[in-house]
Amino acid sequence: MVTDVEKNLVIGIDIGGTGTKIGIVDARGEILARDEGIATASYATFEEFVDAMNDVIKRLITATGSEGRIRGVGVGAPDSNFYTGNIEHAFNLPWKGVLPLADMLSKKSGIPVYVTNDANAAAIGEMTYGTAKGMKNFIVITLGTGVGSGIVINGQLVYGCDGFAGELGHVTMVRGNEGRMCGCGRRGCLEAYCSATGVARTAKEMLVSMNEPSMLRDIKEITSRDVYEAARKGDKIALEIFEKTGTMLGEAIADFIAFSSPEAVILFGGLARAGKYLLEPLQKAVDKNILHTFKGKAKILVSKLRDSDAAILGASALAWE
Amino acid sequence: MVTDVEKNLVIGIDIGGTGTKIGIVDARGEILARDEGIATASYATFEEFVDAMNDVIKRLITATGSEGRIRGVGVGAPDSNFYTGNIEHAFNLPWKGVLPLADMLSKKSGIPVYVTNDANAAAIGEMTYGTAKGMKNFIVITLGTGVGSGIVINGQLVYGCDGFAGELGHVTMVRGNEGRMCGCGRRGCLEAYCSATGVARTAKEMLVSMNEPSMLRDIKEITSRDVYEAARKGDKIALEIFEKTGTMLGEAIADFIAFSSPEAVILFGGLARAGKYLLEPLQKAVDKNILHTFKGKAKILVSKLRDSDAAILGASALAWE
Repeated sequence: MVTDVEKNLVIGIDIGGTGTKIGIVDARGEILARDEGIATASYATFEEFVDAMNDVIKRLITATGSEGRIRGVGVGAPDSNFYTGNIEHAFNLPWKGVLPLADMLSKKSGIPVYVTNDANAAAIGEMTYGTAKGMKNFIVITLGTGVGSGIVINGQLVYGCDGFAGELGHVTMVRGNEGRMCGCGRRGCLEAYCSATGVARTAKEMLVSMNEPSMLRDIKEITSRDVYEAARKGDKIALEIFEKTGTMLGEAIADFIAFSSPEAVILFGGLARAGKYLLEPLQKAVDKNILHTFKGKAKILVSKLRDSDAAILGASALAWE
Repeated sequence: MVTDVEKNLVIGIDIGGTGTKIGIVDARGEILARDEGIATASYATFEEFVDAMNDVIKRLITATGSEGRIRGVGVGAPDSNFYTGNIEHAFNLPWKGVLPLADMLSKKSGIPVYVTNDANAAAIGEMTYGTAKGMKNFIVITLGTGVGSGIVINGQLVYGCDGFAGELGHVTMVRGNEGRMCGCGRRGCLEAYCSATGVARTAKEMLVSMNEPSMLRDIKEITSRDVYEAARKGDKIALEIFEKTGTMLGEAIADFIAFSSPEAVILFGGLARAGKYLLEPLQKAVDKNILHTFKGKAKILVSKLRDSDAAILGASALAWE
């Protein structure tokens, strides 16, 4: 039996539109127990969903004998506000309006709950357990269905005046009417080009504009994974797609560096695994576009956290702060 | 005679390529005494220049009876590094290489010396004496010969990993080869369009591309001041120049807001005095380009510090920190 003072564990929860993952994590970043079985959209009300999370928390605590040892719960959730602990008008969750997540879950569980979006959670995760250990100034860019970012300056996550700072997926890269429509309703956002879905859009565009043969021409609904597989096999159009994507991401990163002069920019998420196909044009574009003052200073790195662990770890790290 | 413990005054020094200004400042931002007579470029060596500054400091202290009351000296200087106290490879100063400003001046004067660039000094000045009093998250954009910026997040100035963060004049606004050459050697920088010199360049460009009559056509070397005077008189091309400049600045600011979600963006320097001619298109472009999350949150403000005082006040504020 552990005593009440030894609160040396945290719980990480990653709330996604499809599934929600929960894990108990120790100070070294080991996940002692986990449950990835909550189907987010299957709960009619937000309170039922919170009850389901609370049940899993209780079960994991009992299973690991962690009673009294949980310091806090960190949650990564879309459109969530660190300051208020609320989820606010999330597009890809089934419940509308302002959802008092931290308040409701902490009352039910009896454990303090901290909330932020998944990109901020990734940044805290990198600082606590990952590539950014010991760094005071860095930017994490998450390359998934969308493009998100978590910015750390002077060792602190940047939340801004409202809790929502760090939306680098929505800086404008192509101005005017030729910019692609973005999910946010604007045009030309980084996310519309450099997310997994952006890569698939670029693929469709290039298959129309180029005449080269390509194995991508046989695929009905192209994904970024297909483009990666084709690039590995030397497919010219696939390589060109990554060249374009990496170049734009590098141009954007050169601007981000002019803002906060970080030690490192850390790429996180599925697309970051594209390796040299993405990283080589990206680094070239950073070097070409960066202001002389910053040349060669910020390292471009890829997260080393395992994909299957990263979401829980990132969220859990919030509870150590 | 004051006692040694009452260190309730600071000294502000603004080092410019042409002139250097020094003043003694109290906690309310009153300049008790000043000297604006140092001609920067007239000193053969950096050490002679530092000696000249030290002589002025001594004289101002004696004149105001401030012996023992000076808490510190804050210096705003081009290409200067807060962490090291050095000026590093400044383009528009006569001495080359790394100049140990803080070290040399503090040894000679016996007073602690803190150094940063003029845009950062402006941000600290706004926070201490100006429009940003009480704000924890804001961005100051200086619109002078160049475009500079000082970024405050969580109440701290952002210096980044190297002391040089906050070069928002050098984010790329026009990509590719059609971007204007910038003084930094790159193309399409915000500074190449939205500085005072950028406005003059836009004027020349528009006088060629438009056929409208304009009073600007009679001026040999157009300045941003000429454009302002013409706009006030209803000159169509002059109004169009400010429309273009304000729009681009607003587009850039919408991106900056996505980074740090500040309470306010404060415009500082000569061009900021163009009033509605610049501010109306600027605000319109911010509203049009901003991500829905941030709509209506960050205020666009103009510095209220008097131009003649701002440089000394901004630098002096560094010594209170």
